[in-house]
Amino acid sequence: MNECFLNIDSNSDFSINNLPYGVFSHKSSKKKIGVAIGEWVLDLSELENQKILQSNFFQFETLNHFIKSGSTNWHNIRLEIKKILSVGSILETNSQLRDSVLIPQSKCIMHLPVSIPNYTDFYSSREHATNVGMMFRDPANALLPNWLHVPVGYHGRASSVVISGTNIKRPCGQTKSDEAKLPSFGPSKLLDFELEMGCILGKENELGSPIPIEKAHEYIFGMVLVNDWSARDIQKWEYVPLGPFLAKNFATSISPWIVPLEALIPFRVSGPIQDPNPLPYLKQNDPWAFDINLSASIMTSGQNECFDISHTNYKYMYWDICQQITHHASNGCNLQIGDLLASGTISGEAPDSYGSLLELTWKGTKPLSLPNGELRKFLQDGDSLKISGFCKNDSFKIGFGEVVGQILPAEINKNYLIENS
Amino acid sequence: MNECFLNIDSNSDFSINNLPYGVFSHKSSKKKIGVAIGEWVLDLSELENQKILQSNFFQFETLNHFIKSGSTNWHNIRLEIKKILSVGSILETNSQLRDSVLIPQSKCIMHLPVSIPNYTDFYSSREHATNVGMMFRDPANALLPNWLHVPVGYHGRASSVVISGTNIKRPCGQTKSDEAKLPSFGPSKLLDFELEMGCILGKENELGSPIPIEKAHEYIFGMVLVNDWSARDIQKWEYVPLGPFLAKNFATSISPWIVPLEALIPFRVSGPIQDPNPLPYLKQNDPWAFDINLSASIMTSGQNECFDISHTNYKYMYWDICQQITHHASNGCNLQIGDLLASGTISGEAPDSYGSLLELTWKGTKPLSLPNGELRKFLQDGDSLKISGFCKNDSFKIGFGEVVGQILPAEINKNYLIENS
Repeated sequence: MNECFLNIDSNSDFSINNLPYGVFSHKSSKKKIGVAIGEWVLDLSELENQKILQSNFFQFETLNHFIKSGSTNWHNIRLEIKKILSVGSILETNSQLRDSVLIPQSKCIMHLPVSIPNYTDFYSSREHATNVGMMFRDPANALLPNWLHVPVGYHGRASSVVISGTNIKRPCGQTKSDEAKLPSFGPSKLLDFELEMGCILGKENELGSPIPIEKAHEYIFGMVLVNDWSARDIQKWEYVPLGPFLAKNFATSISPWIVPLEALIPFRVSGPIQDPNPLPYLKQNDPWAFDINLSASIMTSGQNECFDISHTNYKYMYWDICQQITHHASNGCNLQIGDLLASGTISGEAPDSYGSLLELTWKGTKPLSLPNGELRKFLQDGDSLKISGFCKNDSFKIGFGEVVGQILPAEINKNYLIENS
Repeated sequence: MNECFLNIDSNSDFSINNLPYGVFSHKSSKKKIGVAIGEWVLDLSELENQKILQSNFFQFETLNHFIKSGSTNWHNIRLEIKKILSVGSILETNSQLRDSVLIPQSKCIMHLPVSIPNYTDFYSSREHATNVGMMFRDPANALLPNWLHVPVGYHGRASSVVISGTNIKRPCGQTKSDEAKLPSFGPSKLLDFELEMGCILGKENELGSPIPIEKAHEYIFGMVLVNDWSARDIQKWEYVPLGPFLAKNFATSISPWIVPLEALIPFRVSGPIQDPNPLPYLKQNDPWAFDINLSASIMTSGQNECFDISHTNYKYMYWDICQQITHHASNGCNLQIGDLLASGTISGEAPDSYGSLLELTWKGTKPLSLPNGELRKFLQDGDSLKISGFCKNDSFKIGFGEVVGQILPAEINKNYLIENS
C-alpha cells in the first residue's frame, strides 16, 4: 500500500513516508508550494490547477494559508499526495502530466516556506547550558538556579530568518576584551553556528489563553533544521542584562523542507528523566521527544570536501517541544501560525556531540583539527557550515535535507573601525 | 495659511499641526484609515473613494502600504490633508461631503494602526537603568559596564502588541522568592507598567546593510505612546541569562494615533551630553531628542477619577532614536516597515518622574499614597493605567492622545497553582 511509483533511493531523505512541504521556483516561475519526493519536487500548485488536488491551499507564496486550514486538512492532503504518488495513479500513467508536476530538485530554487510572524529561541539542552555555564560562569554550579524549572527562552528576530543557501555576511559590532578599558567596533572575530531544530506552529491561541500541556502537540505543524548563527564576542559584551540581541539577529538559517508532525510520529521517544519534577503546568506524561539524528559539517574556503564536526540527537533535549509551547503560552502570550520555535543549541554528553564551535573548541582553547590539516576555533570567511538530520527505523528513513550557509567577509566602513585592546 | 475651518479647542491634542494617522471603525464599517483632527476622525479611505484625495494608499486595514510608499508621499499627503481641512476648502462648503468624511472620535473604535512585523524594546533612560541597578544590583555601580557604550535593547513579542483600551489579563507565571527553595506558579503579584515612547519605522534596509547615523532619521515614520506591561516577579526568576520573556510578552499597549515625524520636527532638541563619547558609528552630531511631555495616571477599581503618578519627558533619554536605529542595524539586521522600536522606560531625575511603579514605589518599599486614601505598590485587578503625551511651544500644541489599559483578574487553573514560600 502506498508504494511509490517513482524510483527512490533507499537512502533518500525524501521517501514516501516523509512528504515535507516547501516553497520553490524554477526557471522564471513565481514561488510555488511543493512537496519533496526522492530527487523531485511535486508541484502542488499545478496539481490544484489541474484539479487533481481538489483543494484551495496552494496558490500562495507561503504555506501559512494551508497551515491555517487545520490539522484535518493536513492529514487529508497528505493522504491525497500519497495516492497521487502511488503505483497505478494517474501520474504514473500520464507522462505529460507527470512531467508538468514533477520537477528535479536540482533545477529548483528554494525559498522560505512560511511567513514567520515571530521567532522564539529556547535554551533547552542541559548539556549545552552546562557547557556554557562551565565556560563563562562557575564550573561547580554551571546550571543557573532557574534552568531545571523553566524552559528558558527569548525572542529572536523574525526578519532575519533566511533560507538555507543564503550567504551570511560576517557581522560588525561592539566587543570588549577583558583586558581592554574601552570597547572596540569591527567584524566579529568569534563567529559561530548553533545546531538547532525548529518547530513551525500550526495553530493559534487567543491572547490571554494558555495552552495545557496535553494540547500542546496540536500546535505543531512540522519541523525544520535551524542554524542560529552567533557572534560570541558581540554576545559577551551586550547580553547582560537583557539577553542576546545583535549577536544573533544578523541571520538565522532554516532548512527549506518542513517535515510534518505526522511523518515524525513513528520517531517519538521519551526524553531525559526530569528531576526535579517540573511544576504541574509543565509536567509531561507523554513521550514528546523525537529521535532525530543530527550532524554538522564544515567545508573550508576553496575546498570541496565537507568534514563532520558534530553528531548529536534531538532526543537529548531536556525540555520537549510541548513543554516549550505550554511554557510560552503560560502567561497568555498568543502564538501565531508560522511562528518559529527553535530548540536552542543541541549538545549531547560526548565532546563530539556538541552543537557549536564554542563548545567543540571549548572557547577556542582546543581548536578542531580538520582532516585536511586546517585548524578551526571559530568560523572563517569562506567557510560553509552544513547541518543535516534524519530519522530511521527498521522500515524506513525520513530526512530533513540540510541547512547550509557560507560566511562572507564583513562589510567594513573604515570610519567606524575602532580597535581598543 | 492652513487655518483649519473646524472649531478646534486650543488645548486639543489634534490640532492642524499634528494630523496623526490611525485605523478606526464606526458602526458596522470595516477598518479604515483616518487622521485625527480636533474631536473628529477624517476618513482618508472615503476621501480616496470620492477622488478628493488622488492617492491609492488608504483602501487597506493598516498603514503599512502607505508607509511603504515613502517619505515624499508622506509629505505630499500631509499637504493635501492640510488643504482639505483649510478654510475655503470643499469640505467647508459642502456639508454633505463633510458629514460623510468627518466622524466624531467618540463614535469610533480604534485598531492597531500598523501590522507590526518586529518589536524591539530598548533600555535607553540612564535614570531608569540606574534605578534598576541600584535596586537589584550594586548601588555604588548601578550602571552595568556596557550601558554607556551600547544602546542596550532586546526583542519583544510582536504578536501581543495591542491597541489602547484593550483589557490586560493579569498573567500567571513561575516566580521564586529569595527565601523559597522551589518556584511557585500563579498570578503575578508584582504587575507593573512601563511608560515608553515607540517609533514606527517607515523604511527598510537590506539584510547585511547597516544604517549610518546620518541617515537613521529617514527610517522614522512616526511615534506612539507605549505601555510595556511587566510582571516583575516573573521577570526576576526567568531573566538570567537570556533576558525578559514571559514577564513582558503577555501584552504591550500602544496609543492609536501615529504622530508623523514631520509634526514632531518643531520639537527636536538636544539630548543629554554623552560622556564617554560614543563609538564613531554611534556618534550623534545632530539634535534628535524630542521635547515630549509625558505623564502616567492611575484610576483604581470602582473610582472615576484618574490620579497622576508620574511626569517625565522623552528628551531625558540618553540614547536617541537615531542611535537606536543605527545600533540595531549595525550588524546588518534588517529593519522592516511597521517595526515598533520602543524607548524603554522613561524616567527623569526626580522621584516623581519615574516611569514605572517599580521605581515610583522603590520595589514596593514606598507605596504611593493616592488622593483617595488608597495605597499602591503594584497594579491591582481593576486598576486602569493611562499614559499621555504632548508637545507644546509658543505657537501650538500637538498631542499623542493616550494609551490606557485596565487590569483584569488572572485566569486560574487550580490544578496548576503551586505556592512555595
